[in-house]
Amino acid sequence: MALQPAAALLPRLRRIRERSEALIAGLEPEDLCLQGMADASPAKWHLGHTSWFFEEFLLRDRGPGRERSGGTRLGYEPADARWRYLFNSYYEAVGPRQPRPQRGLLTRPPIADVLAWRQRVTDALEALVEQLQAAGDAAGLALVELGLQHEQQHQELLLMDLLDGFSRNPLEPAAWPLEGEEPGHHAPISPELAYMRSWAAAGGATARPSWIQVAGGLVEIGHPGGSGGLDASPGSFHFDNEAPRHCVWLEPFAIQAQLVSNAEFAAFIADDGYQRPELWMSEGWAVVQQRGWRAPRYWRGDWEFSLAGLRPRQPEAPVRHLSWFEADAYARWAGARLPSEAEWEVAAAAGLPQAYGVLWQWTASPYRPYPGFAPAAGAVGEYNGKFMTSQFVLRGSCFLTPEGHARLTYRNFYPPASRWMASGLRLAGDA
Amino acid sequence: MALQPAAALLPRLRRIRERSEALIAGLEPEDLCLQGMADASPAKWHLGHTSWFFEEFLLRDRGPGRERSGGTRLGYEPADARWRYLFNSYYEAVGPRQPRPQRGLLTRPPIADVLAWRQRVTDALEALVEQLQAAGDAAGLALVELGLQHEQQHQELLLMDLLDGFSRNPLEPAAWPLEGEEPGHHAPISPELAYMRSWAAAGGATARPSWIQVAGGLVEIGHPGGSGGLDASPGSFHFDNEAPRHCVWLEPFAIQAQLVSNAEFAAFIADDGYQRPELWMSEGWAVVQQRGWRAPRYWRGDWEFSLAGLRPRQPEAPVRHLSWFEADAYARWAGARLPSEAEWEVAAAAGLPQAYGVLWQWTASPYRPYPGFAPAAGAVGEYNGKFMTSQFVLRGSCFLTPEGHARLTYRNFYPPASRWMASGLRLAGDA
Amino acid sequence: MALQPAAALLPRLRRIRERSEALIAGLEPEDLCLQGMADASPAKWHLGHTSWFFEEFLLRDRGPGRERSGGTRLGYEPADARWRYLFNSYYEAVGPRQPRPQRGLLTRPPIADVLAWRQRVTDALEALVEQLQAAGDAAGLALVELGLQHEQQHQELLLMDLLDGFSRNPLEPAAWPLEGEEPGHHAPISPELAYMRSWAAAGGATARPSWIQVAGGLVEIGHPGGSGGLDASPGSFHFDNEAPRHCVWLEPFAIQAQLVSNAEFAAFIADDGYQRPELWMSEGWAVVQQRGWRAPRYWRGDWEFSLAGLRPRQPEAPVRHLSWFEADAYARWAGARLPSEAEWEVAAAAGLPQAYGVLWQWTASPYRPYPGFAPAAGAVGEYNGKFMTSQFVLRGSCFLTPEGHARLTYRNFYPPASRWMASGLRLAGDA
Amino acid sequence: MALQPAAALLPRLRRIRERSEALIAGLEPEDLCLQGMADASPAKWHLGHTSWFFEEFLLRDRGPGRERSGGTRLGYEPADARWRYLFNSYYEAVGPRQPRPQRGLLTRPPIADVLAWRQRVTDALEALVEQLQAAGDAAGLALVELGLQHEQQHQELLLMDLLDGFSRNPLEPAAWPLEGEEPGHHAPISPELAYMRSWAAAGGATARPSWIQVAGGLVEIGHPGGSGGLDASPGSFHFDNEAPRHCVWLEPFAIQAQLVSNAEFAAFIADDGYQRPELWMSEGWAVVQQRGWRAPRYWRGDWEFSLAGLRPRQPEAPVRHLSWFEADAYARWAGARLPSEAEWEVAAAAGLPQAYGVLWQWTASPYRPYPGFAPAAGAVGEYNGKFMTSQFVLRGSCFLTPEGHARLTYRNFYPPASRWMASGLRLAGDA
Repeated sequence: MALQPAAALLPRLRRIRERSEALIAGLEPEDLCLQGMADASPAKWHLGHTSWFFEEFLLRDRGPGRERSGGTRLGYEPADARWRYLFNSYYEAVGPRQPRPQRGLLTRPPIADVLAWRQRVTDALEALVEQLQAAGDAAGLALVELGLQHEQQHQELLLMDLLDGFSRNPLEPAAWPLEGEEPGHHAPISPELAYMRSWAAAGGATARPSWIQVAGGLVEIGHPGGSGGLDASPGSFHFDNEAPRHCVWLEPFAIQAQLVSNAEFAAFIADDGYQRPELWMSEGWAVVQQRGWRAPRYWRGDWEFSLAGLRPRQPEAPVRHLSWFEADAYARWAGARLPSEAEWEVAAAAGLPQAYGVLWQWTASPYRPYPGFAPAAGAVGEYNGKFMTSQFVLRGSCFLTPEGHARLTYRNFYPPASRWMASGLRLAGDA
Repeated sequence: MALQPAAALLPRLRRIRERSEALIAGLEPEDLCLQGMADASPAKWHLGHTSWFFEEFLLRDRGPGRERSGGTRLGYEPADARWRYLFNSYYEAVGPRQPRPQRGLLTRPPIADVLAWRQRVTDALEALVEQLQAAGDAAGLALVELGLQHEQQHQELLLMDLLDGFSRNPLEPAAWPLEGEEPGHHAPISPELAYMRSWAAAGGATARPSWIQVAGGLVEIGHPGGSGGLDASPGSFHFDNEAPRHCVWLEPFAIQAQLVSNAEFAAFIADDGYQRPELWMSEGWAVVQQRGWRAPRYWRGDWEFSLAGLRPRQPEAPVRHLSWFEADAYARWAGARLPSEAEWEVAAAAGLPQAYGVLWQWTASPYRPYPGFAPAAGAVGEYNGKFMTSQFVLRGSCFLTPEGHARLTYRNFYPPASRWMASGLRLAGDA
Repeated sequence: MALQPAAALLPRLRRIRERSEALIAGLEPEDLCLQGMADASPAKWHLGHTSWFFEEFLLRDRGPGRERSGGTRLGYEPADARWRYLFNSYYEAVGPRQPRPQRGLLTRPPIADVLAWRQRVTDALEALVEQLQAAGDAAGLALVELGLQHEQQHQELLLMDLLDGFSRNPLEPAAWPLEGEEPGHHAPISPELAYMRSWAAAGGATARPSWIQVAGGLVEIGHPGGSGGLDASPGSFHFDNEAPRHCVWLEPFAIQAQLVSNAEFAAFIADDGYQRPELWMSEGWAVVQQRGWRAPRYWRGDWEFSLAGLRPRQPEAPVRHLSWFEADAYARWAGARLPSEAEWEVAAAAGLPQAYGVLWQWTASPYRPYPGFAPAAGAVGEYNGKFMTSQFVLRGSCFLTPEGHARLTYRNFYPPASRWMASGLRLAGDA
Repeated sequence: MALQPAAALLPRLRRIRERSEALIAGLEPEDLCLQGMADASPAKWHLGHTSWFFEEFLLRDRGPGRERSGGTRLGYEPADARWRYLFNSYYEAVGPRQPRPQRGLLTRPPIADVLAWRQRVTDALEALVEQLQAAGDAAGLALVELGLQHEQQHQELLLMDLLDGFSRNPLEPAAWPLEGEEPGHHAPISPELAYMRSWAAAGGATARPSWIQVAGGLVEIGHPGGSGGLDASPGSFHFDNEAPRHCVWLEPFAIQAQLVSNAEFAAFIADDGYQRPELWMSEGWAVVQQRGWRAPRYWRGDWEFSLAGLRPRQPEAPVRHLSWFEADAYARWAGARLPSEAEWEVAAAAGLPQAYGVLWQWTASPYRPYPGFAPAAGAVGEYNGKFMTSQFVLRGSCFLTPEGHARLTYRNFYPPASRWMASGLRLAGDA
C-alpha cells in the first residue's frame, strides 16, 4: 500500500476542511439549525459531525494498549464530553446519541464554538498526519483518508439537506443565488451552476437518447483493493462496500448514453403516469397515494425549486430529485428498465455513458454485500455494512459531489421512496 | 368609555414593543428558530406574529368602505404579502397559515428583517394612536390596547417556549443566567430572579399552609365591562372571555393561602403518587403511562431545569410546571380538591391568597363561556371564544407575566395534559 | 333505605339478564366478535363483561374478613381465572385487563361457554338476592341493583356498538330488520321501530319548534339520595355522579320543546355549515377536517344507515348520531346555544320538553363532579368518577335505552368528537 | 405445452377445494373473522377470496369479444356484485377493494353463504374444465391451474394467519389439538404433527450440523418454462417469477445440510444476541428496539405457542417463526451468512440439504426479477411482479404447505421484519 506523500495530503486536508466551512458562507445564522425532516440534518450538525469523526477515530486518547501513534503527544484536548453524544451519527459502538429527528433542536453549541473546534481538530490532524507519515503508519493514514472522504460525503449531504429545508419555506429562499457568482479562492462553485455546466458538457440539449449495445458475458466489477481494509493511497481509496472485485454473469444488454430529461419525464406525467398502478411497484403505488406525488420532488408547475431558488425548468436538462419508485415506473412506461449496477459499471468502465457530475443514477440493484464482503474492522465497520437492507444502489456522482470524490466502483444507496438527493435516471433494456 | 391619554399610551406602547425585543438579547442567533414541540413557537415567530397582529387588524388598508381612520394617510407599507401566511397564528377569517408544527422551519426571513419590520410597525402605530386620539376613535384605540395585551401574552409565551426548547438540549443551556444580572433601562429582569423574589415576597419558606374559610352564597364574578366589546381604557381592559359579570351560587368552602411547595409535592411522589391509578382521572392516568411521567416537567433528580439553567430545587418554593392531571391527583391525595374559578376569584377579590406573580393556578373549572358570553366582533372574535372545549382555567399570573398584565378576572386556559407553562397549584376543600 | 321486595327484584333480575341474551338472537355467530373501532366492544364481550361485574363485585369469595354475606354458601364457582382479565373493562383496582382495542380478538371463549357462564351467574345471583333479603343486607342489595343498572347500560352499548360495526360493512347489513317484526315474550322491540314510535309520540311531523321561556333564579338539581352511596330501592336508584342535590343560579332562559329535526340539520348543511370555521370550536374544526365530516355519522345521501339497515331518512325525525361539536356548531348557526344541564333538568322536571326515549341530548356542560361529590366506596368507585375530564354531559335517554332505565337526574357523558351513540340536539337561548 | 388429462385434473380440483373447507372444521364460528393484524386475513376471507379468484378470472362473463370459451354456456351466475369488492385482494386492474386491515369487519356474508358460493364455483369450474379440455384451450387450463396453486397458497396463509390470531388470545387456544388426531379421508393432517414428522424425517435430533462444500462456477437457476406465460401441465407449473432460467456465477461456497435448531438459537439468545447491535442490520436493530423482540415470535419461556396450543419447545427441532433480521443476525453471530437463492437452488438440486416440508428458509437475496423476467399478461400479471421491492426470498416449503405444492424453483418472499410465517434458517459460508 503506497502512502500519500505529506506534501499532497496536507494541503488536500486543509482544502477539504475549508470547503465545508465555505458552504455556509451565504447562510443566515438561523439557517444553521434548519432540519426539514427526520432524514436530513442541519448544516451546523454536519460541521460538527465531521469533526467528531476525526476526534473519535483518530484524535481521542484510546487508553492503555489502544493508543494511536503519538496520540497524547498531539496535546489535543477533546471537546466537551457531551459533544460525543451530540455529534455521533449512528455508531452504536461509540455509544448513545442525539436522536436524529431532533438534531435541529441543537441550537447550542453556537456556530462560533463549533468552528473553533473545527480549527483545533484541523490543526491536530495536520500534526497527526506528519507523525503518521514519519512513522509510516499506513493504517492511521487510511483512517485520515476515510475521514476526508467522509467529510466530502457530508458536504454533499449538507447541500441536499439544505435544499430540502428551504423547499419547505413559503418564501422559497435561494441558498446560493446564481447572480453575481464570483467564486473566491477556495469557495465552492454555485451548485446550480455546476448542474447546468455538467449536463451541458454531457451533450446538453442537442443530444438525443441513443441506445448502446453491450455484449455481456462473464465480467468483473468492484474495487480491486482489499475487501474490508482501508487504503491510505488517495488514488486507490475505496469504501469497504465496493470490494471485493468479483465475477458477474451478464446477458447482453442495451443502455442509454444520456439521462432521462425533464421533457421526457413530462411526457410520462402527461400520459397519466402517476395515476396508473400497473406502472408501479405495489409499495411505490402506496407511497404515491399516501404522499400525493404528482411530479418529481422539486417541480412546481413549469418551475423548479433549487439551491438557486425557484427557476424555470429546462426541458432538456436531466430530470432530478426523483425516487427509485418513480425511476422504475418511468422505465416501465418507456418499455425499458433500470440497469443493474454491474451493467452500469461495465458500461461506465467502457466510457459509454456520461457517468459523473450530473446526477446519481438509480440502478435496479438492491444494496447488498458483494460476495466475500467483510466490513472494515472496528467501529468504522458500521460505516456502510449495516445498511444493506431495503435500499437501492445509485451509481456515478452528481453536481453536489465534491471534485475528486467520484469513482467507477462507488456505491451510493438510498431507500426507494427517498428523493431529496440529486438522483436521476438512465434507461437500460435487454439486448 | 374613557380614552387613554396619548401621553400615557404612547410611552407604554413603545415600552411593550421594546420589551419583546429585549427578550432575545441574550440568545444565540440559532436559538431564534428553536421549536421544541408543536405546541411551542420560536422566539422569532413570536416577534413576527405580534407585529402581524397590528398590521392585520390596524395598519392594513381595508379597502373601500372598510378603511381604518387615517389608514392610507399613515403611509404604512405592509410587509411582503407572504408574511401574512407566515405569521398568522390561527385566524381562519384572515386566511391560511404556516402549519403550527412547522414554524421552526422559518429560518427566513432573517431576524434583521423581522426587527426592521417591527420598527416600521411601531412607528406606524405611534402615528395611528395620535390620529385615533385626535379623532376620539374609541374602537380603534381599543384594538391598539388589544394588540398590546396580545403582545404581552406572547412575551410570556416566548419565555415558556424557550424553556421547553432548551430543556431538550443535552447541554442544558441557560437562556438567562442568574449570575452577573444587572438589568438595564428597559431590560426585563431575569425570570428566575422574578420567580425567587415573588414567592419570597409571598411569605416564602417561613409560611405554613393555612386554610381560610369562605362563606359562599350568591356571588358575582367576571369583569363588569361589556361582554364582547373592546375597551380602550387601560385600567378597565379585559378579554371578551372575562365577561359578562354574572351570579354564581357557592357553597361554603376553604382555600389555602399558599401554593403547594416542592417539598409537599415530593411527599406525593414518595407516596407513589405517580403509580396509584386511584388518584388520577382515567384520561390523566393514560397520559402518565404513555409519557412515563414520574415528576413535574422540569425536575431532574434534586435539581430543576429553568431559564437560568440547571439549579438546585428549593423545597419551600412552589412546585411548578405541572399539568392539571398532576394538580388534580395531588389534591385528591391530599384529601382536598382544586378550587373552582368562582371560588378562586372570590378569595382573591377578598385578598385572602397571594394571587399574582408567582405561578398560574389550576382550577377545577373547564374553560367554558360565561352565561351571556358573546365573542368580540370581527376576526378578533377568534381570539378566545373558539377554544372553549377540553381545557381548564388557570387563574392569577406567573413570574413570566409582564408587569401590569395581571388582573382579578383573567382567565388563562390550557389542556389538562399541558405542563410547559408556569403552572402551580393551590388547594381547596368543602367547608 | 327501603329494600326492594324479593318478589319484585327476582323477576326483574331474570328479565334484565334474559333481555341481554335476546339482543343477539338475530345475529350471525361471526357478528359476536365484531369490533368496528377501539371505542366499541363486541356483543359477546358485553355479555361476558356484565357477568364479570356480578362475579367480581358480588359472587367472588372476598377472603378472610371481606366475605360477602353467604359468599361461600352460594357454592358459586368462579369462571376460569383468565376470564377476569378478559372481561374487566377499566377497573384498575381489580387488575390488568385485555386492551380495549383488542376485545375483538377474543374469538374464544366461544359464545356457548359465555352463555353457560351467564346462566350460572344468574342462578347464583338469585340465590344471593334471597340471602341478602333475608339478612336485610341493604348494601349488598344495592350492589345487585348497581349490577342490573350496569347491565342495562351495556344493552344500549351493545346495540350502538353493533350499529357502528355493521356500518363499516359494504353489504350494509340489517341487525334487526323492521319487516316481519313480531316480538315474543321477552324479546325486545326492534330499536328502529322504537325510534319511530318514540318521536311520533313526542308530536312527530306535525309539531313545530316552539320556544319555552323559563324564569331561572336559584334552583336545585341532582338526585336527593346520598352522595357516593348505593341505594337498594329501585325507585330511588341513582349513580354516584347524580348526587348530591345542590343549588345552581340560573339566568332566565328559553328552551325548545322539540329536538332539532333532520330537515333543520339539512338546512345547516345546505348553508355550508361544515365548511365555515366561524361556526365551530377550534378543536371541532380540526376534527371536521381530519375526518372529512360532511354530515351526521350515518347519513348516506338521502338515506340513513340504522339497525334496520339502510332506510330513507325522514325529514321530520330528529337528527341523530352527531357529535357535540356538530350540535354546538348547529346551535351557533341557528343563533342559539345548547342548554346547560341545569337548564335541561329544570325544564324536564317541569315537563316542558319531551325528555326521554328518543335521543340523548347534548348539553353545554362539561362532565364534572357536582359540588360535594364523593365517588362510591371500593372498586365500584371507578364506575363514573374517574372520567370527569374532556367529556360533555348528555341528558334524557334514547330509543336504545332499556325501559325503566331513564331518570330525570341521569348524567350520560361522551367526548365531544364521539357520535356513534344515539345523540340528538335541543336548542336553548338566553331569555 | 402438454394438457393435463381431465381424469387427473378434475379429482385434483375437487380435492384442493375440499381441503380448504376442511381447514376450518375444528374452528368456532367466531374464529372465522379473526384478524390478528393488518397483514393477516380471517379464515372466511381466505375461503371467499379463493373463490373470487376463479370467478373473476375464469367464470365471469367477459362481455362481447372477450368471452371465455363457453363462458355463458356454463350458466354460472356471479355472486352479489359487492362481493367483488369484498374479496379482491390487491388487483388494481379489477377495481377497488375492502381495505386489508378491515377484512376482519366482514362478519357478513355469513359462512353458510360463502360455502354455498364455493360449491357453485367448484361445480362451474368442473364444467369449465371439461369444456376447456374438449376445446384444447391450453391458456384457459393454465388459468385453472393458476387458481388451484393460488388456493393452495391461501391454505398455508389461512393456517399461519390463524396462528397469529390465536397467539393474541390470553386463553392460548389450540386451533388443532394434537390429541385424538385421526385424520379422515380428505382431512388434512394436524400441522403440528406434520412439523414434528417432517424434521424427524430430515434426521431429527440425531443429526449434527454438517457443512457441505459446493464448487460454484457458472450455474443455471430458475424454471425452464417460458417466462411470463402460464403452463397448463401440472408437472411443469411455475409462477412467472420463477422464470426465465438464467446463468449465475457462483464462487465456491459451503452450506449446512440441517436447519438451525432451537437449541442453537437459544445459545445466540444466551450470548445476548438480541442486545448486541453489531450483529444486526441497522434497520433490523431499530425493529428489535421498537417491538421489544427478545426471542422468536412464538417462544414463551421454555414453551412454544403453536396451532396445537402451548407446548414444550423441543431443543432439536428447527427454530421457526423468525424474521430475516433475526436469521441474518444469527448467521453473523455464528460466523456464517445466509445462502443466496442461487446457492440454495444449486445445493437443493443436488440433493444436498433437506429442502422441503419443514420450514421456509430465508436467503440473502432480495426479491427482484430474474434477468429477462416478464409478468404474466392481463390482471394476473399483478400476481407476483409488483412486489419486487423491500422483500427477501425464502426457498423450500414448510409444514403448512399443502402436499404437491413444493418446487425447486419456488420463490416465496416476505419483508425482512415479518415473522408470522413458518420461516427457518440454514447457514452458508464462503468456501
